[in-house]
Parts: sequence; structure tokens; C-alpha cells
Amino acid sequence: MSKPLKVALLGAGVVGSQVARVILDEGPTLEARIGRPLELVGIGVRRMDVERPGIDPALLTTDLEALVARTDLDIVIELIGGIEPARSLLLTAIANGASVVSANKALLADDLAELSSAAEANGVDLYYEAAVAGAIPIVRPLRESLVGDDITAVMGIVNGTTNFILDKMFSDGSTFEDALAEAQQLGFAEADPTADVEGHDAAAKAAILAALAFHTEVRSDEVFCEGITGVTPSDIAAARQMGCTIKLLAVTKLTDDDRIIVKVHPAMVANRHPLASVSGAYNAIFVNSRDAGDLMFLGQGAGGSPTASAVMGDVVTVARNRRRGTAGHRSAGYTSRAVAPIGESEAQFYVSFDVVDRPGVLARCAAIFGHHGVSLRVVQQNNLEPEDPADEGAPGARLGVMTHVTREQDLADVAEELRVAEFMRSDVRIMRVEGF
Amino acid sequence: MSKPLKVALLGAGVVGSQVARVILDEGPTLEARIGRPLELVGIGVRRMDVERPGIDPALLTTDLEALVARTDLDIVIELIGGIEPARSLLLTAIANGASVVSANKALLADDLAELSSAAEANGVDLYYEAAVAGAIPIVRPLRESLVGDDITAVMGIVNGTTNFILDKMFSDGSTFEDALAEAQQLGFAEADPTADVEGHDAAAKAAILAALAFHTEVRSDEVFCEGITGVTPSDIAAARQMGCTIKLLAVTKLTDDDRIIVKVHPAMVANRHPLASVSGAYNAIFVNSRDAGDLMFLGQGAGGSPTASAVMGDVVTVARNRRRGTAGHRSAGYTSRAVAPIGESEAQFYVSFDVVDRPGVLARCAAIFGHHGVSLRVVQQNNLEPEDPADEGAPGARLGVMTHVTREQDLADVAEELRVAEFMRSDVRIMRVEGF
Repeated sequence: MSKPLKVALLGAGVVGSQVARVILDEGPTLEARIGRPLELVGIGVRRMDVERPGIDPALLTTDLEALVARTDLDIVIELIGGIEPARSLLLTAIANGASVVSANKALLADDLAELSSAAEANGVDLYYEAAVAGAIPIVRPLRESLVGDDITAVMGIVNGTTNFILDKMFSDGSTFEDALAEAQQLGFAEADPTADVEGHDAAAKAAILAALAFHTEVRSDEVFCEGITGVTPSDIAAARQMGCTIKLLAVTKLTDDDRIIVKVHPAMVANRHPLASVSGAYNAIFVNSRDAGDLMFLGQGAGGSPTASAVMGDVVTVARNRRRGTAGHRSAGYTSRAVAPIGESEAQFYVSFDVVDRPGVLARCAAIFGHHGVSLRVVQQNNLEPEDPADEGAPGARLGVMTHVTREQDLADVAEELRVAEFMRSDVRIMRVEGF
Repeated sequence: MSKPLKVALLGAGVVGSQVARVILDEGPTLEARIGRPLELVGIGVRRMDVERPGIDPALLTTDLEALVARTDLDIVIELIGGIEPARSLLLTAIANGASVVSANKALLADDLAELSSAAEANGVDLYYEAAVAGAIPIVRPLRESLVGDDITAVMGIVNGTTNFILDKMFSDGSTFEDALAEAQQLGFAEADPTADVEGHDAAAKAAILAALAFHTEVRSDEVFCEGITGVTPSDIAAARQMGCTIKLLAVTKLTDDDRIIVKVHPAMVANRHPLASVSGAYNAIFVNSRDAGDLMFLGQGAGGSPTASAVMGDVVTVARNRRRGTAGHRSAGYTSRAVAPIGESEAQFYVSFDVVDRPGVLARCAAIFGHHGVSLRVVQQNNLEPEDPADEGAPGARLGVMTHVTREQDLADVAEELRVAEFMRSDVRIMRVEGF
């Protein structure tokens, strides 16, 4: 029997325990695919007093520093998440000559360049398919399959928690708060849901996608980020009226002057667009490129088994490279494309607001849009029921306006002017639109 | 400037001329991604007297043998198609130390094992992303992303010509012959459409997908293959009545006893299944695996630019390996899974036939299904209008039956018994069903 490749695993949560199970149970299959057996030599955990069926307690340690300080490791799999200590542990592992596989989107979004350089300098691999969109193979297609083409845009649904909440709001008219509470009860949202609902999780994935697609460095704090906490039942109703649903999208595009737009925001998505029907735990990513045209990738975005599938694909790939004494592909990051300010991004918008219902108001609204060069595609007017029948004020109307493609800044200027107009009876609600 | 990697191109048709254009026009970008420049040193063509804008005629040669016999080549790109001389040319290139990239599905379906062994023995790469489903990254995900998981089934729409013809028959009730004639007129079908409409093209792709998914050898003559020439407007009408469309599917599955089903056939696909809405030039591939669950890949399946995108992704990957003095992943083909006879395959079926309309006939039909252990999910009866109003015969009825999941052989036995029953007034039409 040929010499085993030694593997250390950091983290034994939902994904980690599934990865451990695959390595321990599928030995002969993995050896056939790699050409050498894998030997799991240690599992770094936070606490020892947790039941871990099928895992030999002798493998467990709470001293993760000592585990990665071993100089005989071939592969370190990092599934603990967060920036520190994950970053230091991986840099130590790399310095000691181990190839690394990580599913840590937060870390990779912030430190991909540093980790890539360290891996390159030490002649080891850095793979991270599981960091974006769970089981969906998207990192490898962007790094390799499309590397002879020029990608122009990537757009996707990359967060299952927000997808569940928005589905729920759409299907039964729940408020955001009620839908979140239900998601928490069912285990689809964490006790502190901030990272999901504020869009930070999606922003980390958007940064990684942008870096891969455009061969440059993008950090998550460069991503324009608007979460779903402000989405209201009246946004949902407006979307329905326009033949749309609402999805949290991660979007990155190349501009005409070779800069990068990278943003996360809720958007009205036309029902006929394939992303509109991606529901629940599924993620989906659209890629547009010069030669390939439109591509779509769909699959489960989270969960122990789907994420473990992506991790194990990387482990086998890295192990094969190790057996042959080589290291695989790193994204060169050879361009230094700048991230453009969100104001220069272009999109279609749906703008809604309540006005006093009297002659001339619609014309004045239209003039404000026109003054800023924003042309309109659809205008809807609904009369408002007075909230209090005894309301003595003037009758109101709700205007909903879908624009043609518009610069964000021009739309922001329109909103600013509308907000101070004397005929306004509400704030101005702005939602981006895709698929028309 | 670092030493260029020398590239020879075999074939300058629609895909080849696009590949040549990318190599000649995108030099600096490709060099940045590879780490060394590419130099196109020769293009093998059948005829010199063709206008090839942007290509230096000094690069062209009709002596393909002499081109691949050069011992200084780093990469040979084969886009001429067919078994010979492509096979011999690639074996010569490999023997002379060149890595090879091919889009030749017919060759790879028949000779993947031989070419892989030759590449392995000579320490060079063999890549062929463009051979299946054009621009869709599917070979690399199967070879690498899912290599730590166990694939259980792959099902896809992998032939654009038949997809166009079936769309046309569905949308306007055309016969197969009329839809084919229109496809030929529009350039979507070749003058000799046999390879497409008889399913041979899809069968070659199915063989490659099965070999990759199940780590074994599968040749195209082992693929059960039924084309679309027998699909009639009445099949289309029946599909519509059942809430389905008709697609030509390539399917490969693992059986419970570790054998492989691999087949190409038209199928009724439920409208709510994502494959039902894949139309025109788009291909789509579903993959199911133990850990990842369902994945779907969608994109353009043919055409110069989409295919060139896949070819160039392989060229850059192979060139990066070349620069580092290594060779990439080959599918090990370490299992020797047998292809199961089609009779042991399981599917749902829609069976339709005309009977004499008199009491007791339906019961006798149901008894024949039951006798062979085939249970029924839906039974439809439509009265037939006599073709000639003066027809003196007994009134007729058309029966349409959707089964539960059934062994092919059991269904064939049912059909055989039905065909000889005295109440039959037509042949028995059988269509497989997906998505219920």
C-alpha cells in the first residue's frame, strides 16, 4: 500500500463532521480516485464534551495551533469560519508546507490575495469551492473553464436564509420580522441573523466572485451592500403587480471603462427570468461572458452534505496534485481593476411614493425624472384609501414608476428632489429591477 | 519576454477560426493568465482556397501529419471531428510530447481510454470540455468538483438540432419532416441530419458523461439510442394533454447493483421540470449526487464562440500545466462497471394505442398491464372521430396510459401482448416520461 496523505481537519460542526465521515468511510473509493490513501490525523474542535458518533475521540484536540504546527501534514481543511484564528492557522499550515482547503467565505473575501501569495510562495495549493454557493461548482468554472474567455457579468442568489425569508413574505404576506422569526424557528436563520439579513454573507461571496471573474483583488468592504431588513409587504405587493418576485442578488459587472461594479441588494426579478423560480435552499449563479454567452449554475447553497461535497472535491484535487508533487491553479489576480462607486452603476429601478392626489402632480413628478435624464418605462397610479376615514386631508395616490436603465446617481438625485417636494406624502422607496 | 508555448491548430471551420482569432488577438491577456505567451505555429486545413480573414496564410498547411510530427509543439488543438484521421493525428501529437485539447465527441466517446492511456504514458494532458454541451462547464465539474462525492445520475439536453425540431413541432404542430426541413433551411440542421435526429450525437455525449460520472469506460455503441424521427404530432398532442413537452434526453444512472444505465431517447418532460423550458440552442445538464443533491448546468450547446470558449479554457489550463512542467487530471477509469441492458432500466412510461370501443376492452387492457406487474398512474380515454364518416366499422377510442416506475422489459412485454390483442386498431406507441 502506498504512503497515506496526512489530513488535518479544523472544525467538526455540521460540515466538518460530514467531511470526517466521508474521509473515514469512503477510504477505498477516495484512494482509487487519488492514487494514494488519505489518513485523517487530527480534528481540531472547540469543545471535547460533544457527542461525535463514528469519530474516534483520540483524533480530537482543542489545540488547533499545535495541530497545524505539525510539519508532516499534506492537507489542512479549514471549516471553523470567521477571520481569526482561521487566518493565522491557515498561514501556519501553508508555511509548514500543507495544501489548504477552506470553506471560509469571510476570510477568503478579505484575505484571498494574502493567502494566495503565501500558497504560491510555499508551492502549495489553496482551494475554496465551498466558500461560494455551497455544492454548486462555480469557483472552478470561473478559475479554469472560463479562463480563456472574458467574463462580463456574474449575478446570483447566494444566500439561502434571505431567500427563505423573501419566499415566505411573498407567499403569505408576512412582514420581514414575522418571516425572520419563522426562519429562526425552523433553523434556517441564526439567532443573530445580521450577517444574512444585512447582506454581509452575500457581500463576502460577491467579493470572491468578482475577484475570480475579473482577475483582481476585491475585498468585502468594497462591496455596496443593502440587506433585506427594509423590504416591506408593500414592496412585495408592488413586485407582484409588476409580474416580479423579490430576491437578494449578488451582482458584479465590468464597466465600459474596465472598472468593476460589485453590489448586493434586494431586487425585483421578472417572473420569466430563471432566477425568479430559485426558491428555498437553492442558490443559482448566472455568468455572462464574451464567447460563452449566458451560463447558469444551480444547486443547494448550504447544508452539511452539499458543502461537504464541494470540500471533498477540493480535497481530492489537492491530494492528486500532492501525489504528483505539483500545485494547482491559482487565480493570478494580475489586473488591478478598481471598484467603481455605486453611483456609477447602471440598473433599472422601481420607484414608489405617495403623493397628494390633485391635478398637475403627476406631471411635476415626471418633470423631476426627466430633468435628471431618467426615462420611464412604466407608470402606475393607485388611489390610496384614507387610513382614517375621518381624515380631513387631501386624497392621496401611490405612484409606482419603472425606469429604463439609469445611472444610480441620477436616480438618487431624482429621489432627493422628490423627497422635498411639497406634494409628497411618504418617503421614496427604491428597488432595483432585473430581467426586463 | 518568456519563451512562447507553441500551439498547432487542426481545423479552421466555425470553431477553429474563432479559436485562432482568440489566440491571435488576445495575446497579452492570455499571457497574463498563463504566465507565458502562446504562439500559433500552424493551422492544418483541408483546403487552402478558402477566405480566412485575419489569418496569415503562411500559417496554413494541408499536411496535418507533418504538422503534428513536429517535436517542438506544446499544445495541439483538434477541431476536425470524426474518428480518423483525428485519432491518429492526436496519438502522434501525444507521442511527440504535446498536450492535446479536443472538441471531438465522436472520437472521445470511442477512444477516451486509449487516448487517456497514451497521454498518461507520455506525461501530457488530454482535455475535452468542448466535446459535451458546448460552452457549459460540465467535464471539469464531473472530473474535479464532484470527485469527492458519488454521482448517481446525469440527465441532459445535449443536442441543439433536435431541441429546435421538437420545439417547432410543439409550437405549431409541424410534422417531423416539415420541422427538419425548416431547421435545415435556417442552418440548424445539416444536409445529412442522421447523426443528430437518430440520436448518435447525443449518444456519443452520453457515453462521455457516463464514463466521467462513473469512473469507467463506456463506448457510444453501448448506449441505447432512440432518435426523434418517430415522434409524431399525435405524440406532441398527448404530451400537451399530460402537461408535458417532448425533449431528446441523454440519461445515465447507476443501478442498485452497481451497473450503468446509459440511454438516449425522446421523453415527455413535465412542464414544471426545469429541463422543459430549455429551448432552442440551449443545452442543460442535471446531475444528482449522494452529497451535493441536485445540480443543474445551463448554457449554449454549440456554435463557434461558445465552443471556442470551452476550448480556450482548456488551452489556458493545459498551458499553465505546461509552464509548471506538470500534467493535469485524467479520469482514472478505475472501476469496471458494466453497462446494463436497456431491459433492466427503469422509467415511467406513457403508452398510447387505439382500440375498438366496446364494453370490457378497457378492463382487458388494464389486466394486461397488471399481469406484467405494471401499475398505472393515469388513464385517459378519448373517443376517435371516424376518419371516413361512412366508415361502417365499430367506434374507436384512443387510450393513453401513464405508468408508475416500471422495468423496460416489463413494459415491452405489455406492448407485445397488446399488439396482438384482437381489439387493437393501431400500433402501440411508447414514450418515456420524466419529471413526475
